[in-house]
Amino acid sequence: MDVIPYLAAVSALAGLALAFFYYKAVEKESPGNERMVFLMEEIQKGAKAFLKKEYQWVSVFAVVMAILLAVVIAPLAALTYLLGAILSSVAGYAGMTVATMANARTTEAAKDGPGKALPVAFRGGAVMGFSVAGLALGGLMVTYILFVTILEVDDAFEVVTAYGLGASTIALFSRVGGGIYTKAADVGADLVGKVEAGIPEDDPRNPATIADNVGDNVGDVAGMGADLFESYAGSIIAPISLIAFASALTADQAGDVGFISLLMFPIFVAFIGMIASIIGSFLVKGGESTDSKALSKALHLGTNSAMGITVVGVVAGAYWIFGDTDVFAAGKAWGLAVSVIGGLIVGWALGKTAEYYTSDHYQPVKNIGKQTETGPATTVLKGISIGMQSVAASVALIIIGVGIAYWGGLQALPDLANEAGTIEIGGLYGIAVAAIGMLATTGVVVSVDAYGPIADNAGGIAEMAELDPSVREVTDALDSLGNTTAAVAKGFAVGSAALTALALFKSFEFAITTASGGDKVLDLDIGNVDVFIGLFIGAALPFLFAALTIDAVGRAAAEMIEEVRRQFREIPGLREGKPGVIPDSARCVAISTEASLKEMIIPGALAVVVPLVVGFIDVDSLGGLLAGSLVTGFALAIFMANAGGAWDNAKKYIEAGAHGGKGSDSHKAAVVGDTVGDPFKDTSGPAMNILLKVMTIVSLVFASAFV
Amino acid sequence: MDVIPYLAAVSALAGLALAFFYYKAVEKESPGNERMVFLMEEIQKGAKAFLKKEYQWVSVFAVVMAILLAVVIAPLAALTYLLGAILSSVAGYAGMTVATMANARTTEAAKDGPGKALPVAFRGGAVMGFSVAGLALGGLMVTYILFVTILEVDDAFEVVTAYGLGASTIALFSRVGGGIYTKAADVGADLVGKVEAGIPEDDPRNPATIADNVGDNVGDVAGMGADLFESYAGSIIAPISLIAFASALTADQAGDVGFISLLMFPIFVAFIGMIASIIGSFLVKGGESTDSKALSKALHLGTNSAMGITVVGVVAGAYWIFGDTDVFAAGKAWGLAVSVIGGLIVGWALGKTAEYYTSDHYQPVKNIGKQTETGPATTVLKGISIGMQSVAASVALIIIGVGIAYWGGLQALPDLANEAGTIEIGGLYGIAVAAIGMLATTGVVVSVDAYGPIADNAGGIAEMAELDPSVREVTDALDSLGNTTAAVAKGFAVGSAALTALALFKSFEFAITTASGGDKVLDLDIGNVDVFIGLFIGAALPFLFAALTIDAVGRAAAEMIEEVRRQFREIPGLREGKPGVIPDSARCVAISTEASLKEMIIPGALAVVVPLVVGFIDVDSLGGLLAGSLVTGFALAIFMANAGGAWDNAKKYIEAGAHGGKGSDSHKAAVVGDTVGDPFKDTSGPAMNILLKVMTIVSLVFASAFV
Repeated sequence: MDVIPYLAAVSALAGLALAFFYYKAVEKESPGNERMVFLMEEIQKGAKAFLKKEYQWVSVFAVVMAILLAVVIAPLAALTYLLGAILSSVAGYAGMTVATMANARTTEAAKDGPGKALPVAFRGGAVMGFSVAGLALGGLMVTYILFVTILEVDDAFEVVTAYGLGASTIALFSRVGGGIYTKAADVGADLVGKVEAGIPEDDPRNPATIADNVGDNVGDVAGMGADLFESYAGSIIAPISLIAFASALTADQAGDVGFISLLMFPIFVAFIGMIASIIGSFLVKGGESTDSKALSKALHLGTNSAMGITVVGVVAGAYWIFGDTDVFAAGKAWGLAVSVIGGLIVGWALGKTAEYYTSDHYQPVKNIGKQTETGPATTVLKGISIGMQSVAASVALIIIGVGIAYWGGLQALPDLANEAGTIEIGGLYGIAVAAIGMLATTGVVVSVDAYGPIADNAGGIAEMAELDPSVREVTDALDSLGNTTAAVAKGFAVGSAALTALALFKSFEFAITTASGGDKVLDLDIGNVDVFIGLFIGAALPFLFAALTIDAVGRAAAEMIEEVRRQFREIPGLREGKPGVIPDSARCVAISTEASLKEMIIPGALAVVVPLVVGFIDVDSLGGLLAGSLVTGFALAIFMANAGGAWDNAKKYIEAGAHGGKGSDSHKAAVVGDTVGDPFKDTSGPAMNILLKVMTIVSLVFASAFV
Repeated sequence: MDVIPYLAAVSALAGLALAFFYYKAVEKESPGNERMVFLMEEIQKGAKAFLKKEYQWVSVFAVVMAILLAVVIAPLAALTYLLGAILSSVAGYAGMTVATMANARTTEAAKDGPGKALPVAFRGGAVMGFSVAGLALGGLMVTYILFVTILEVDDAFEVVTAYGLGASTIALFSRVGGGIYTKAADVGADLVGKVEAGIPEDDPRNPATIADNVGDNVGDVAGMGADLFESYAGSIIAPISLIAFASALTADQAGDVGFISLLMFPIFVAFIGMIASIIGSFLVKGGESTDSKALSKALHLGTNSAMGITVVGVVAGAYWIFGDTDVFAAGKAWGLAVSVIGGLIVGWALGKTAEYYTSDHYQPVKNIGKQTETGPATTVLKGISIGMQSVAASVALIIIGVGIAYWGGLQALPDLANEAGTIEIGGLYGIAVAAIGMLATTGVVVSVDAYGPIADNAGGIAEMAELDPSVREVTDALDSLGNTTAAVAKGFAVGSAALTALALFKSFEFAITTASGGDKVLDLDIGNVDVFIGLFIGAALPFLFAALTIDAVGRAAAEMIEEVRRQFREIPGLREGKPGVIPDSARCVAISTEASLKEMIIPGALAVVVPLVVGFIDVDSLGGLLAGSLVTGFALAIFMANAGGAWDNAKKYIEAGAHGGKGSDSHKAAVVGDTVGDPFKDTSGPAMNILLKVMTIVSLVFASAFV
């Protein structure tokens, strides 16, 4: 069984090799004519410049954190913290570089139809997918093998957890910074371009068009990649730290064999998932058909096969790892498979719920469409109420997921409990492995997710290079395909975030007890005033975080608007489209970069500073804070993501001809809804899930310092 | 000391006598010319018709609840439940009847300037204020004296608490139903009138104008009155039930004398507050000056004096009641005065915070004004982020308030704890009495609060009766005065809601232990999965509730819009203002009434059914649910109230001439913000606080049935 981490490390290497293979495959495609190459390089330059600057800023923060960790926790924790941060940065940088190579190549391939273009876009995304999965798993396994298996250092599990904290730091800043960038550029480009100057989207005359396309990459590709790196690493770390920090409590029942089994199972799930992802990615083939159903099938085949293989592997692994140990009374190993599969189903259902509330095939978005007829106010109100309704549905699913996963864990490990028998660790373990089940196929899931913005960019390039409209039609088809496949991935990300945070929260509780040698047991009774105060603070934090990020987008967009207006005013012939007159796109890119990085600091620091301050004052309050922000932040994140998605698709629904179509008053109202939703769905909402996990994981890593 | 409830009952009677006196004073004023009398009577007829229908619908619900209480808890609890419900209804009906008499009389008095009109409007409001305070306190004291002091019945404190539940039921439905009514009429009148037909607000040609004015009364007067009736009764019941249900735990330390002292102190605070309110109300005098500062002083003098007297009385009372008992080790009676005064200061600061975020004298609203220049989307986003920021500030204040009140209680009653010594009941008691401190002067506070809509209505009548514009100017001055004085009252209502709910939550915990004879101690450790599931449900419920109420307003407004359009279409000469052609206002009133009552059912029932269902399944989950909904609902309520208020005043700020003034594009954007904010601030937001308390008090009353 000790071989499992080595297997996982090898599978991670295989994933990285695949990423390299896809990179080469993308590279050898033609990027098209001179104009297209120019545009591609502009976008790439802008995106790289942003990431480099972002990493510079974040590295200051990371070094401060590393010093703090070295002094307060352990020097090795500082090391793994930096490793996690660096690997996440490398994955983001590599993935985005290839994504910005793949866009023009997808456009070029689209000239031959979607069957040719789809594989190019998918492979471009797959570099991100397998860089993220390979580096995240590889780095974690190196950390584990070195410090836990071989060196057996003190605080080995704090050191492993610090790896996750490093990944979380990058994810938080990437999501916040990238989210601000992409929406500032988007809003800035739209407001001046479409509304004031009356020129279409992605028009080459608009100085902010390049920045807008850069934004898609830094937000939807790099930000999403860092997010999934963090989620994936976090979901593997959660069950490990749960068991590790509870070991003082469980050693009696589990014994050494049992303890190792419990640590190995999540790593095994990750290993199987990686293998399955690699197989799945090979099943994505373009074929000859240009039919959208066939294309959709091609993409789905990859993810669905990967999940099918994972499920089979998990059942087999559960029996292999737990079947022959006699340390657990019941030994119903299938229980853990139930947890994992339950998690998968709930994650799938969460994705479908999001789709129901945000796709124009269903009633909610159609209702927003209807409300556009009475103007922007009713449009906004309807979107808000739909987003809020979706919270209730999503929370119901999360509760079902938690219930199933807990029950499954309890079946498999009924005797795994603390000494007093009051905490059923088996059930908690079930929750933790359910989260990793959802994310085990991160490699292929992120590939499909990153595919979307590549197709989107390809369309932008087609427009800016003034290619034949038929090319744009093909890229649009690929783009809309991306939106539906991404829904399930989002459901997994959201669902696993809640389960992982819950498991990490329990680890934090155990870590406090362990670190204090049993002197301090967290007293998290809600009835205690300090816990309740913590709950109050925790509920308020996500609101503050949302306010800060919404305002940040507003300020950054305002700077962008000023610049675009200035260029239209000062560059003669630009607005009229005089041949040879080109806008100063680089300046817009620079403004977006500066503004978004400046705005990233405060909300990002909040997530780290607040739990540390509260933790050093009163650790019971910190427990309340984490719980309060978990439940409120989860609700707020769902609300914002789905309200934003619903408005976006309501606008598209009207643009497709409903309620008067483009240019009608309904359309104007729908555009207002869409603009309100932009920072909701692409900045505040996605960053919220990371906020929750960063706060929990900071608390967990620093637990020993609090007591 | 046993005389205190009798004193309180007598003071309540005095309050009722004062209400009658003010009613007579209002009645003898002239209601103006024929047209004004007609309008007044139409509004009154509409408002009364609404309340009657509402009470009919609610009585069905109340009877079902009463039967449930009689069967599951105790027949006497059903009786006091109905008493609380009936008295709240009577107070609402009486107060609103006089408010709808005072409007035209204020208009008429306004012809002689604000110095004449202010007392009329204030007295009209004071009938509501002292009806609410007098009936709430009187009914509660009768209940207490009869069942606790004289008959000493079994379950005496469940019976007392059921009185609060009756009041809560009426408050919830009044706030929800009234809130839907007022906004449906307002939005309906505005959208068709101002936007489509291009006629000004309160124009007599608009068929929905009367309904709009009725809405001000049923929402802002009757709804607010029922809300404060509930809050006031609840805040007195909270410390009593805390001590009563903890008595099994505290009997050892407190003994009989101490037990009675603890029960008497909150009643004493209510008694002093009533006397202080009566004195304060006499200090509100119009004077001869028409200067707005002088007017503002006149109103403030009443409330400030009442609070000053209460503070002095509380200090004296604390020493009187606790000074000579030797059952508490420290006997630092001043500690409880600290709790009460701390509560008052925090309540005041909460009001000021709300004012800061919603008044156009400060930066936030000015910033919204600036954002109107880039259109409705940025206007909406800015309002949302301001509302969310205000959550952080308000929660910080609540935490300070909880901290001070807890500390004060602990100083006074350091040895009051459960047997294990783990629960410091003295601190919790401090929290509970801080809430009653904020609401002790309900009589005069509600008077000032109800004054606002009367002044608002007076302006509407001036407009509809086509009086000289100078009259409207006077009523506008009175109206804007009402807005600032109401801010402090709102702070008290919000702050006390949080503290009361917290105290009731603790009572619920004790009630479970007591009811089970100590067998079942709630295990509310957040780390337990069932508690965490409860937290999740609790966090989702306020979002669902907000969604339902926002949608309800939307649907009701849509029906209204249809009707107004129909009348403009089918009644010849109406739009053009042909003399003698009048709209069918009664039909609009009927539509608003039907629609809002229909829409009230589901959100209202949710608040009662969900805790009952969860409680019978798993009472620990119910604990989590109550805590989760308390913190999330509090945050959401603050967000919605302040965002809505900020948009409202941003619109007024622009109408006063900023950013292009009325008719500009900025103004259009501001109107969108205001319309989005309407259901936020007048429907969902205000109802949220009651939702939280209803759920807690339902759980408390049914605690013995859950175990």
